Amino acid sequence: MTARLIEGGVTTPAGFTAAGVYCGIKKPNAVTHPLDLCLIASTQGPVPAAAVFTTNLAVAAPVVVSRDHLQHGGGRCAGVVVNSGCANACTGDAGMAVAKQMAAAAAAALACDTDHMFVSSTGVIGVPLNLEKVKAGITAAKAALSIDGGTDATRAIMTTDPFPKSCAAMIDTPKGRVTVGGMTKGSGMIEPRMATMLGFLTTDARVSTAVLQTALRRVCDETFNAITVDGECSTNDCVLLMASGLSGVEITDPSDPALMEPLRAVAGHLAREIVRGGEGATKLVTVRVTGAASLSDARLAARTICNSPLVKTAIHGGDPNWGRLIAAAGRSGAQFVLDAASVRIGDVDLFVQGVPFDERASAAATVLEQERMVITVDLGTGGTDEATMWTCDFSEEYVTINAEYRT
Amino acid sequence: MTARLIEGGVTTPAGFTAAGVYCGIKKPNAVTHPLDLCLIASTQGPVPAAAVFTTNLAVAAPVVVSRDHLQHGGGRCAGVVVNSGCANACTGDAGMAVAKQMAAAAAAALACDTDHMFVSSTGVIGVPLNLEKVKAGITAAKAALSIDGGTDATRAIMTTDPFPKSCAAMIDTPKGRVTVGGMTKGSGMIEPRMATMLGFLTTDARVSTAVLQTALRRVCDETFNAITVDGECSTNDCVLLMASGLSGVEITDPSDPALMEPLRAVAGHLAREIVRGGEGATKLVTVRVTGAASLSDARLAARTICNSPLVKTAIHGGDPNWGRLIAAAGRSGAQFVLDAASVRIGDVDLFVQGVPFDERASAAATVLEQERMVITVDLGTGGTDEATMWTCDFSEEYVTINAEYRT
Repeated sequence: MTARLIEGGVTTPAGFTAAGVYCGIKKPNAVTHPLDLCLIASTQGPVPAAAVFTTNLAVAAPVVVSRDHLQHGGGRCAGVVVNSGCANACTGDAGMAVAKQMAAAAAAALACDTDHMFVSSTGVIGVPLNLEKVKAGITAAKAALSIDGGTDATRAIMTTDPFPKSCAAMIDTPKGRVTVGGMTKGSGMIEPRMATMLGFLTTDARVSTAVLQTALRRVCDETFNAITVDGECSTNDCVLLMASGLSGVEITDPSDPALMEPLRAVAGHLAREIVRGGEGATKLVTVRVTGAASLSDARLAARTICNSPLVKTAIHGGDPNWGRLIAAAGRSGAQFVLDAASVRIGDVDLFVQGVPFDERASAAATVLEQERMVITVDLGTGGTDEATMWTCDFSEEYVTINAEYRT
Repeated sequence: MTARLIEGGVTTPAGFTAAGVYCGIKKPNAVTHPLDLCLIASTQGPVPAAAVFTTNLAVAAPVVVSRDHLQHGGGRCAGVVVNSGCANACTGDAGMAVAKQMAAAAAAALACDTDHMFVSSTGVIGVPLNLEKVKAGITAAKAALSIDGGTDATRAIMTTDPFPKSCAAMIDTPKGRVTVGGMTKGSGMIEPRMATMLGFLTTDARVSTAVLQTALRRVCDETFNAITVDGECSTNDCVLLMASGLSGVEITDPSDPALMEPLRAVAGHLAREIVRGGEGATKLVTVRVTGAASLSDARLAARTICNSPLVKTAIHGGDPNWGRLIAAAGRSGAQFVLDAASVRIGDVDLFVQGVPFDERASAAATVLEQERMVITVDLGTGGTDEATMWTCDFSEEYVTINAEYRT
């Protein structure tokens, strides 16, 4: 029983409509993706929902409001309103009031309790969000809601993303077919730790909030929490999963592959798409760390390698500078034994149990010319724990994008 | 009693000579600083010496050898041999043999025990170091040793450094004058944690190894350990301090300002020079974190801000994107209270106890146009602990330098 990844998005599972509109938050001349407000609605009213949020202590107002609503709304959600172009973070009491009124306006439009509305923002930190524009956007988006609206919705949450990111997956089980859909955005300030920038997932499985929450957290640890673009955990990260139940397939065990398989397929694909579309990224790099003394050590070393600017610039330049991989592993804090450590780029062994084979560098350089590659580092401890993370290369364009983000 | 910073270097204190030569380790056409081997010699034979080394577990062969020599040589050192262009790191047993023979050759040239010779390397990781070239370089450097050789010695340890870094400081005490001199190099893979890339310090104070070691470690924590260029702790970091005793001024307390003041002046200046000369750097940024619940929290938040690629690219672009400072502090792991936190760039308050003043952004942008600036972040915990660190901006040139380092 395996899930099949298909084109689609949040409206692919039965029970959800969506829309994306432009309401004037982004500068019209400054953006490649001119939509800036998105609405996702459950056609069944409030349905079970689960979410994970940023662990950044400088948490944005919409995250505070959404967390509060999910708690007071009994773990049910009728819809999501999201704007791009302004993060509504570090905006003080005024920003908190705007986030609450944004949720209230969307709840009024969908005729549901405010506590059943999820609110989210992404964009510049510290700048006020214009409530009147948001309200006008909500009215327009409500009128545009449809099962074909997933594409516009996906475009409306983009900031510096070079391409929209959505997909769906379906699985045929003895009890029937389950579908999961999702959309997400990157593409800087990405090292989610507990969630990702913004991710919205839907399913038609019939499942309780508690089971949904456990399943979501497990999947996030393997997908959104295993990627990094620049090591920056954002103020606004969140992933929401809503379940309409319309497939009639009941899930009572969070490990049930009928939910986990399509969920993992969608979240994994979207997570890697975020990395592939990272700011200035030209390559998607899979970093596998083996021979670790513990799972946390494996993850720590993988994270350190994935965030190393020297590793990421070398990959950008196609330079098989494997010493930088060893240096990053050695400083990571994970247990590490130099004399037994190894490095492999693609299928080229450059460092084997402490012995260098630098003469193979040109073969490894060929691997680094690809758009996708696998780098394996063995920590040499004799342990059997391992971890996989995804990162991108580090280009001049990342600097250019972020030196000029607000100007 | 304060120390006066002056031009000079390792040969400014009485009792030391130095030389820098070219012996063919660096490609002659590929380098702006064509010297690649340096010798520093005590004119008094073995004298008290102290050192701090990298905490990277992927430790380079010369670090292992120097640590071993200092231990077996009774904490005394007669000289240092350093090459640039090749780090002799991750080079296996063969590299360890080369490091030992490099030390032995330099000891023979200076007619001292091998255990009294300190050896150091910097450059590409994982490439073999050519012993024959090193030996020829040692012979040439021995012949060139002089008290005027500090400038060439400084140039001979440079890799991607845009300028040489050396200085001296003197202090007049009731017991007489004490002089400290030093030289160092950067300029990538810089977040020393326990030492810095390479730093060589000398003094004419009369002081025991034990007192010297305590004084050096204290000063390093405030200087070389408080800088970062790219968050990368190298495999070869070390700082060595030798004391000739020729001033006749005896130091028995590691806190004695007669040693601490000039030592702090030299190490602090050289540490900031490393940052100012960081790869691709155009600005020197002082980050002061206040209002922390503990000293370790203050240092953690300062380190996270100093290593944030989004903060560093914003500074490069002159963009007062203060939200990124808050986001970095919030994800640092330090205690942080958003509603009471503040951000100041120069003397412009952009965020005061949770309230944004983004309209002052243009005033802050003027501050960011300077080559040197101070950024202050208050964590809002009500605590009184604080820490200062130094970093540089992050430019397209950093990427260009490191994408092409070996090619």
